[in-house]
Amino acid sequence: MNRRDFFATTALGGAASVLTPSLNFAYPNAVPAARMKLTFKPYTLELRHPFGVAVNTRTTTPVVLTTIEYGKFKGYGEASMPPYLGESQESVTKFLSKVDLSKYENPLELETILSDIDAIDVNNTAAKASVDIALHDLAGKIMGQPLYNMWGFNKAKTPNTVFTIGIDTPEVVRQKVQEVDPQFKLLKIKLGRDNDREIIEAVRSVSDKPLVTDANQGWKNKEKALETIHFLKEKGAVLIEQPMPKEMVDENAWITERSPIPVMADEAIKRLPDLVKMRGAYHGVNLKLMKTAGLREAHKMIALARAFGMKVMIGCMTETSCGITAAAHLTPMVDWADLDGALLIKNDAFKGITFVDGKITLPSAPGIGAVPR
Amino acid sequence: MNRRDFFATTALGGAASVLTPSLNFAYPNAVPAARMKLTFKPYTLELRHPFGVAVNTRTTTPVVLTTIEYGKFKGYGEASMPPYLGESQESVTKFLSKVDLSKYENPLELETILSDIDAIDVNNTAAKASVDIALHDLAGKIMGQPLYNMWGFNKAKTPNTVFTIGIDTPEVVRQKVQEVDPQFKLLKIKLGRDNDREIIEAVRSVSDKPLVTDANQGWKNKEKALETIHFLKEKGAVLIEQPMPKEMVDENAWITERSPIPVMADEAIKRLPDLVKMRGAYHGVNLKLMKTAGLREAHKMIALARAFGMKVMIGCMTETSCGITAAAHLTPMVDWADLDGALLIKNDAFKGITFVDGKITLPSAPGIGAVPR
Repeated sequence: MNRRDFFATTALGGAASVLTPSLNFAYPNAVPAARMKLTFKPYTLELRHPFGVAVNTRTTTPVVLTTIEYGKFKGYGEASMPPYLGESQESVTKFLSKVDLSKYENPLELETILSDIDAIDVNNTAAKASVDIALHDLAGKIMGQPLYNMWGFNKAKTPNTVFTIGIDTPEVVRQKVQEVDPQFKLLKIKLGRDNDREIIEAVRSVSDKPLVTDANQGWKNKEKALETIHFLKEKGAVLIEQPMPKEMVDENAWITERSPIPVMADEAIKRLPDLVKMRGAYHGVNLKLMKTAGLREAHKMIALARAFGMKVMIGCMTETSCGITAAAHLTPMVDWADLDGALLIKNDAFKGITFVDGKITLPSAPGIGAVPR
Repeated sequence: MNRRDFFATTALGGAASVLTPSLNFAYPNAVPAARMKLTFKPYTLELRHPFGVAVNTRTTTPVVLTTIEYGKFKGYGEASMPPYLGESQESVTKFLSKVDLSKYENPLELETILSDIDAIDVNNTAAKASVDIALHDLAGKIMGQPLYNMWGFNKAKTPNTVFTIGIDTPEVVRQKVQEVDPQFKLLKIKLGRDNDREIIEAVRSVSDKPLVTDANQGWKNKEKALETIHFLKEKGAVLIEQPMPKEMVDENAWITERSPIPVMADEAIKRLPDLVKMRGAYHGVNLKLMKTAGLREAHKMIALARAFGMKVMIGCMTETSCGITAAAHLTPMVDWADLDGALLIKNDAFKGITFVDGKITLPSAPGIGAVPR
């Protein structure tokens, strides 16, 4: 697109007004031609409680906060890098320093821009997501619309969020469950060590809420896994996530065929091609922006999963309310959402979604609607 | 969504401005709360030349033109009903009289609204498309953005359109090819009767342009079909559409495995679930809004087809520049476009896309950018 087309397209309302005299409204994008500028800075999230999954426990999460400026507009994004996923502040910073947004004349050309960024290098999905999120925020602000309106979603259809209990001793798990804000209607319980039943019994000794269970690839024997899933179902589990290691495709598929509750892929399905490859091996998928490289691919993956008759959950890493709120805009289209990531940190850098009686409540400001604190 | 949420979301910019003081732009949707109103009227397209495909020839195409009004905004849509597809002005009018848009408070909730409309009755895809198109036009106008910007597509990436030669005697085909405006770089040749080779030789006697060939389900023997495809390839065909009847899935798949040029589904893949079902039986798909029930599903089908590694073409019926221009906004994402439908009629009711040296050129006005003449 040359400069003149660009003006006709996004800078001047004049030509269009002549064509459509019955329309008389302000152009939201009546900004002088500008160039996008990407900036980023490392930030360390401090966790309220040490957070455990099957493979480790930690007290901080490194993130990188991104900003894309375009004229008077500012879009915010974020990369979150739990250490076991292979990215770090260093790798994200290195990747982002290769991203040149100044060459694009139209900031709304998300498909082109994000394809180009995806092609810069393999992996780096958190780094890519941080640009994707900021670019969506910017686009929404330019259009004067919250993301849910850009996508045509009904903000009233957001689900209740799941509240996650990190892996720990049964005693600590019991205590954590007791401390959960009563508004949250589903608990996510991390399993995958050798004390799954004790953990569940500990939870059940203090709560009868439905459980979202997650083995985090922790189980190694399919028959035993299936047996545990039957136990979980009896105890009120509504789904089981990633029962066995992602490489054990046949074993996971074997469980999926027999499980009395939906078997959801997490580690096994990161990006869109994984969803096509893994069709049939899981009942559904847990999408996370840091895996999918952002909102654009996650949005497509929802459509694809639905076409396959699959269930969809939106999850998160520990993230600020920027990344969490971005993901929340997709939730009117999904079955479950696990978007408590910002509640688990002490130093959230943004204000974004709120929970009203446990239900995800989207801001109605343009873009993501997350505001720096 | 209750009325109060709706005001906060789409009618008042005040709250958001407080949250994001650095943003200072006019809200495009600062319209008083309004209700959508759908109106529609039958219209008959007069063809410049009698138009033949494998199964019939005709001189007119019945359409229904729709309008959705919302406050000061007006979205335009269209249903086109070539008689062999099972819809008529009567059936469309009957369907549309069951559509109540006044119950939706947020006109941007396309996903909800279009799902509801799809559920009113089976089939009726042209009628459904006419609402989908008008609703997208309305949404773009409310957002102040052309559809390609709403979707994040690069308007510079539109392809050249194919120009279609209706089925006829070799002599008339030769004459029609000679009359084609030289700007058009690909010709679509309708085959599927018993004189395919004569037709192609007639074309080649006056033109060396690449050919998009379409058997329109006309072939009944797979070996003979494959032989003809090899002949077509030699003669410069770049693809073959719907070689055999759609019901002959295995035979079409057999051809796809062996064809030297892409085999595209037309009649065999109408809607999104067909694309999933027919995976592997074709190299690609020709999407038409009157088959897909509109832009929303066509947009998803492009993503799905790409995930399957399939080629995509956007086609059309004989339509006004309203429907044609709507479809054209999807073309930056496809391999081929056959969007000459409005050129084939004498009484186009809209002004929309233009062709610049054969290339589809999108208007940059908000929404579809098609304007009533």
